[in-house]
Amino acid sequence: MPNKNNTNTDLAPLLPILYEEAVRRALLEDLGARGDITTDAIVSPEDTASARIIARERGRIAGIEIARHAFHSLDSNIRYEILRRDGDDVEAGDTLAHIQGAARPILTAERTALNFLSLLSGIATETRNIVAIVKPYAARVVCTRKTAPGLRGLEKYAVRAGGGSNHRFGLDDAVLIKDNHIVVAGGVAEAIRRARSHIGHLVKIEVEVDNLDQLEIALREKIDAVLLDNMPIQMLAEAVRIADKKAITEASGGITPENAGSIAATGVDLLSIGWITHSAAALDLALDLAFNL
Amino acid sequence: MPNKNNTNTDLAPLLPILYEEAVRRALLEDLGARGDITTDAIVSPEDTASARIIARERGRIAGIEIARHAFHSLDSNIRYEILRRDGDDVEAGDTLAHIQGAARPILTAERTALNFLSLLSGIATETRNIVAIVKPYAARVVCTRKTAPGLRGLEKYAVRAGGGSNHRFGLDDAVLIKDNHIVVAGGVAEAIRRARSHIGHLVKIEVEVDNLDQLEIALREKIDAVLLDNMPIQMLAEAVRIADKKAITEASGGITPENAGSIAATGVDLLSIGWITHSAAALDLALDLAFNL
Amino acid sequence: MPNKNNTNTDLAPLLPILYEEAVRRALLEDLGARGDITTDAIVSPEDTASARIIARERGRIAGIEIARHAFHSLDSNIRYEILRRDGDDVEAGDTLAHIQGAARPILTAERTALNFLSLLSGIATETRNIVAIVKPYAARVVCTRKTAPGLRGLEKYAVRAGGGSNHRFGLDDAVLIKDNHIVVAGGVAEAIRRARSHIGHLVKIEVEVDNLDQLEIALREKIDAVLLDNMPIQMLAEAVRIADKKAITEASGGITPENAGSIAATGVDLLSIGWITHSAAALDLALDLAFNL
Amino acid sequence: MPNKNNTNTDLAPLLPILYEEAVRRALLEDLGARGDITTDAIVSPEDTASARIIARERGRIAGIEIARHAFHSLDSNIRYEILRRDGDDVEAGDTLAHIQGAARPILTAERTALNFLSLLSGIATETRNIVAIVKPYAARVVCTRKTAPGLRGLEKYAVRAGGGSNHRFGLDDAVLIKDNHIVVAGGVAEAIRRARSHIGHLVKIEVEVDNLDQLEIALREKIDAVLLDNMPIQMLAEAVRIADKKAITEASGGITPENAGSIAATGVDLLSIGWITHSAAALDLALDLAFNL
Amino acid sequence: MPNKNNTNTDLAPLLPILYEEAVRRALLEDLGARGDITTDAIVSPEDTASARIIARERGRIAGIEIARHAFHSLDSNIRYEILRRDGDDVEAGDTLAHIQGAARPILTAERTALNFLSLLSGIATETRNIVAIVKPYAARVVCTRKTAPGLRGLEKYAVRAGGGSNHRFGLDDAVLIKDNHIVVAGGVAEAIRRARSHIGHLVKIEVEVDNLDQLEIALREKIDAVLLDNMPIQMLAEAVRIADKKAITEASGGITPENAGSIAATGVDLLSIGWITHSAAALDLALDLAFNL
Amino acid sequence: MPNKNNTNTDLAPLLPILYEEAVRRALLEDLGARGDITTDAIVSPEDTASARIIARERGRIAGIEIARHAFHSLDSNIRYEILRRDGDDVEAGDTLAHIQGAARPILTAERTALNFLSLLSGIATETRNIVAIVKPYAARVVCTRKTAPGLRGLEKYAVRAGGGSNHRFGLDDAVLIKDNHIVVAGGVAEAIRRARSHIGHLVKIEVEVDNLDQLEIALREKIDAVLLDNMPIQMLAEAVRIADKKAITEASGGITPENAGSIAATGVDLLSIGWITHSAAALDLALDLAFNL
Repeated sequence: MPNKNNTNTDLAPLLPILYEEAVRRALLEDLGARGDITTDAIVSPEDTASARIIARERGRIAGIEIARHAFHSLDSNIRYEILRRDGDDVEAGDTLAHIQGAARPILTAERTALNFLSLLSGIATETRNIVAIVKPYAARVVCTRKTAPGLRGLEKYAVRAGGGSNHRFGLDDAVLIKDNHIVVAGGVAEAIRRARSHIGHLVKIEVEVDNLDQLEIALREKIDAVLLDNMPIQMLAEAVRIADKKAITEASGGITPENAGSIAATGVDLLSIGWITHSAAALDLALDLAFNL
Repeated sequence: MPNKNNTNTDLAPLLPILYEEAVRRALLEDLGARGDITTDAIVSPEDTASARIIARERGRIAGIEIARHAFHSLDSNIRYEILRRDGDDVEAGDTLAHIQGAARPILTAERTALNFLSLLSGIATETRNIVAIVKPYAARVVCTRKTAPGLRGLEKYAVRAGGGSNHRFGLDDAVLIKDNHIVVAGGVAEAIRRARSHIGHLVKIEVEVDNLDQLEIALREKIDAVLLDNMPIQMLAEAVRIADKKAITEASGGITPENAGSIAATGVDLLSIGWITHSAAALDLALDLAFNL
Repeated sequence: MPNKNNTNTDLAPLLPILYEEAVRRALLEDLGARGDITTDAIVSPEDTASARIIARERGRIAGIEIARHAFHSLDSNIRYEILRRDGDDVEAGDTLAHIQGAARPILTAERTALNFLSLLSGIATETRNIVAIVKPYAARVVCTRKTAPGLRGLEKYAVRAGGGSNHRFGLDDAVLIKDNHIVVAGGVAEAIRRARSHIGHLVKIEVEVDNLDQLEIALREKIDAVLLDNMPIQMLAEAVRIADKKAITEASGGITPENAGSIAATGVDLLSIGWITHSAAALDLALDLAFNL
Repeated sequence: MPNKNNTNTDLAPLLPILYEEAVRRALLEDLGARGDITTDAIVSPEDTASARIIARERGRIAGIEIARHAFHSLDSNIRYEILRRDGDDVEAGDTLAHIQGAARPILTAERTALNFLSLLSGIATETRNIVAIVKPYAARVVCTRKTAPGLRGLEKYAVRAGGGSNHRFGLDDAVLIKDNHIVVAGGVAEAIRRARSHIGHLVKIEVEVDNLDQLEIALREKIDAVLLDNMPIQMLAEAVRIADKKAITEASGGITPENAGSIAATGVDLLSIGWITHSAAALDLALDLAFNL
Repeated sequence: MPNKNNTNTDLAPLLPILYEEAVRRALLEDLGARGDITTDAIVSPEDTASARIIARERGRIAGIEIARHAFHSLDSNIRYEILRRDGDDVEAGDTLAHIQGAARPILTAERTALNFLSLLSGIATETRNIVAIVKPYAARVVCTRKTAPGLRGLEKYAVRAGGGSNHRFGLDDAVLIKDNHIVVAGGVAEAIRRARSHIGHLVKIEVEVDNLDQLEIALREKIDAVLLDNMPIQMLAEAVRIADKKAITEASGGITPENAGSIAATGVDLLSIGWITHSAAALDLALDLAFNL
Repeated sequence: MPNKNNTNTDLAPLLPILYEEAVRRALLEDLGARGDITTDAIVSPEDTASARIIARERGRIAGIEIARHAFHSLDSNIRYEILRRDGDDVEAGDTLAHIQGAARPILTAERTALNFLSLLSGIATETRNIVAIVKPYAARVVCTRKTAPGLRGLEKYAVRAGGGSNHRFGLDDAVLIKDNHIVVAGGVAEAIRRARSHIGHLVKIEVEVDNLDQLEIALREKIDAVLLDNMPIQMLAEAVRIADKKAITEASGGITPENAGSIAATGVDLLSIGWITHSAAALDLALDLAFNL
């Protein structure tokens, strides 16, 4: 059950307010001022078609409702039957959704629908794969703010669909004190004190530390979490031992499928991984169409 | 000179109209309703800093003006000196830009600036790499419409910065007749005829063909380009021979760094590759900051 | 059959994405912050009415779906029966649509609906009239980029409804090398070479020439189309002869209903006419309303 | 002094808030996702140019600041010297503005700038011409709500630049009771009473009447203005006599340059004319460019 | 019948165009990029609930349709039965609406719905209370332009629901000459003359005067209304006498529930009160929810 | 030092991205399609003026940069000297800012500037007053999500300027389990467990409890904060004793200036008060203008 953590696989209710605009923008980008001139020339408004969205490789699905919305933005009468929901695993050849309706809007919305679905499923799949590696351990996989500009909410959703958890959504929902902040403040303790006096009571504080000295200082200030940046495995294990439940521990920097297991084995609570969003390969999906001649 | 084809490495003049909104949206996404609570708590409005954007791995740069705009959106007084322009190649450790000014906006805009620059430079780098492979041949590398939703214009710009060329920007700027259209029309020739009678005189027609029979029919209709989809090398070479300058030839489907050279060696004009946009890994970049204490 | 060329008379499927915003903007412009104070004061929410959109002069219709959308933006329950579709010709007195429903939204949306329909039908009518004149010849009538700011997509649609064809939609979908570009490049041939090395394989090149020398140079560069600017009939005929199917020929400048026939008689492929968009008189239409008392 | 009535010829202060968005929308419409591919290919970022906006026919200018804003939206360093301001009359050959700066943005913004300036100057010119005809009389020329969707504020500004006055800007800033409202209310007097009890103390009431009986009833209700719709000259003169300063009188329907003088001679206060906005021909303007080689 | 003046209690028809955007903006503000994380965690998509909006204190309702729209923006299947309409008076404990449907969207939209409804009902209630005080007199209560930025149209609607009337909606729909304008013009009469020569025939003129001398000058210029600013009761009564139906009289400045009656007793036509919008306390409302377990 | 908690009194750096749109929307709302017709008629573009923003009553300032931005949105050349910054206390008669420049934009932006400044300063003042009452105790005053729709970020900023702290900004930045959620979950402990398994590691959990039993159950689940809803003083004191630093304690419901001291005296950490935002009276401010004749 890789989704057990903080997955919300039911994006549908938020679509009308949170994500309609992203779909609309993507469709406008593809349609330009003239629309789909190929389909308009060749396909009649009366032609109908049925189609399937199929997986061409194995992976984890995310964005099936966003894809639906791309079709329905052009024609609300299209029938769109979802066979695999977000968070489901698929094999090459599996059908994700059946589509039935006017052929024109199906063809015109195809690329927009697939672009969302491939991007998000690619992220979910990368997340799932790394989550599977750390599964024997207590550690959770979390994403970062390294996301495609303008698509963060959706990409973080895909991480959840992949079984991962979310770190901060933005600069405003938690304090993360980084090395640069520490330099300005003149020290870890002072930085933490400034932050604490500034924030509301529902805001947590995490501090990035590079070594065990900084860690001990940070822990004395009773912070919520500590980001252990680029530490060798040995030091990381020692850091986790020192933190000893006094703060959530997060490993960060250079985490790969090869070393993820041994990092998780240190007992660290979180593995923070940027590439599950910024460098995930798209999942290979296609729309197979059959005209109702 | 991998940029020689249709690279436009001077994005700056278009920024105010074409891309400001994308930067603004990305900043809003990161700032939320409260802004950068960590920096606001720890850094004083009077603190100043100097910083460098550096490459942590080798690659091709794209988006250096977009990154500048992220900083200037928060504070137009920040000095931003560009050392490596879009289309330049960098090595790990190279400095791309010097930044000098108020510390707060530099820290607050950092992630937004780097997210654009890493994404676009990643695409430029992947493009450059595959372009280098086909360099001995006449073939050009072109991208597809498989781009991150809402970011197509920027991603296609990055392809140009990488030395690649652009295919259609959207459904409206050229006709591309695909297999599905051919099925509806009842044949290649009929599909082409419908398209030709529908379009303006400055719109080109490209047709996707799966085999040599379709190719010959298409060529008889005097089309501008032919997309040779998923053909084995042998068939591809034969197709190029048949097309014989009567139409631009484009190879598509399953092109990898491994087979790109032999595909280009067939004499095909274009290699169309989706993964240079949809699956490019971000280029590893960082902001190194020194406070002026 | 003046619509036979590239008319797309079925705008409906694109409405939700491409044109809803234009209708919404127009309604907001008319409603202000207070709405229709006259109708709100005098008409009860329970009053119902039936109405007809009628032509007060003969012409060609364009925009009947846009008009429908204006009413439906205020009240989706209004019944709107379309009797004359875009591309249809009407006589004074003809009914274009029957409308039935709540009286308030019908009265409130009336002006917005008619403003779109009159503007677009005026363009379609002017286009139809000039198309009729060149009908004995092979030439097509094309529009320019001289359109009302923000309404280009709709105005170019109206040209198609009038039986005309569309030239470029914007600066980005084809190369059109004008006199100013030639001056900068230092000559026709150099300008063409710069353009060719810059563009993608699905982008066509058209060159504006003033005389036969420039024409011959341009043709040697194998361009797609040539714009013959302000040439006397004699020179135009000679230019068409020289071009001899090596490029599409387009006559431009000072084309009127009086000289359109003789220009078309030269065998030129296209007559490019700005005034069918920028100076077309609106078609006189009205809403006749009968209250169901 | 045709501008003496309610002309506001200084649009500049409102540009940043009221009209920037219209210019931005128009530029985006022309630039698409790729920008000006012709200019980008042929003109170097370093090339500079000087240019003049010239009139190719006589007319009245409106929109010279809007045109300036189109250039400055792309490049705020362009020098734009205004020689003829809004409300000025020009002859064929007159220079309206000198432009100096980078050649690329000048060429790229040219069409957008001219489209605004030609449209608005066309309206100002038509207005000026009809205003000149009624000049011997006290009557003022007013526009209607029959304007290009989304451009009403600018078109009504152009009417003022032409020496005309503005009628309502929208449905919300005054009450205009039309025939349809009277039918619903069951009579002129009842309609006026309903309106009066509904509106604020700074809202005026105008009533459309078709005959002298309706006029007398309306005047008894002490309205602010009366629209005399499609009345023969004789009846119109009688109506003006009856109204006798008890209400402002407005003639409407079928007003042409031929009959405007005799209509104005009746002593009517206003001539309301839709075609000065909805059917005005664009003023013929051009950008003459000289490269600084 | 406190609503008898210019109340429009049927906001529903304007919602789709005029107010949807305000509701959407408010929901986005509350949902951020992640949505309602509490409800998503605890409530299942299948859970249904019924709820009531109840008044916790007596007051006048405004915004019941806006509240409905907040729920329907998230889920159009929610049943929303309106028991008390805008303009209705309620007692503590009264139910305003019954809501039935999926529990998630009901809980998620609750605060947005109540924020609109409480704000607007608070304004309606304050207005009603002061209207009740002046009821024995002919005077009407009018609001000002002192409204929450971005919410003016809704707040002025709430004033109408409270039985008040609206003053200007903005700077553009009537002339209000204030002391500062008079200083610039060099006198009351000159200011009025400048305004009159500038405006259209459906625009009224009101002048602010501080003393009886200014009043007499203003009345000689035949203005529509006069704002009697901060006058002692005695002077106010004298001013009303002098105005003697030659202009609408409006009292302004320092009007409280204590002095409103005596001000109205002077015979003044309007009492203009800023605090009914800018300082009204929100009406205390709550959503009572019962889960259908 | 009432600002000592989490006040960020330097809003300026965030203005360009976070709040420009709110100011632009407010100006458009006031300007309509026609602009400030009174000022345009009476004041010449060449007239200059100096002005002061003055307080007419004592209070705490918030929004002085927003007010500046309103003027600068119309004319960036206006000189705006800030004398009292956000978080400063003022007396009646104090000058907040000196303004100097063209008279037209100063008069036109006046109301928009003051509407923001009065609204936010009113909230800051109410907050300051209640903060002063609880000052002898450790308790902090926090706001709620009961804010004017679309203005939450600014209103919460004003609370900080008043010396208060911020609660959640929206539904997405912390978990707040309310009575309704507990009913659905079937109990306090189950609701907490569901929330914990759903959220990221930087999200805090607060639980609303009505009695001491619920409190003890909640504390066993190791939550971050507990909202003690509508408890009598006695029970509240007992609850604080039980919580004993195991969770932050927040009193909520019916807090007034009268009882705030005794509530704070219980040792509770936070007093949560909705009326400091939803029912704060605007601070009385004015613009005094002197024309430079």
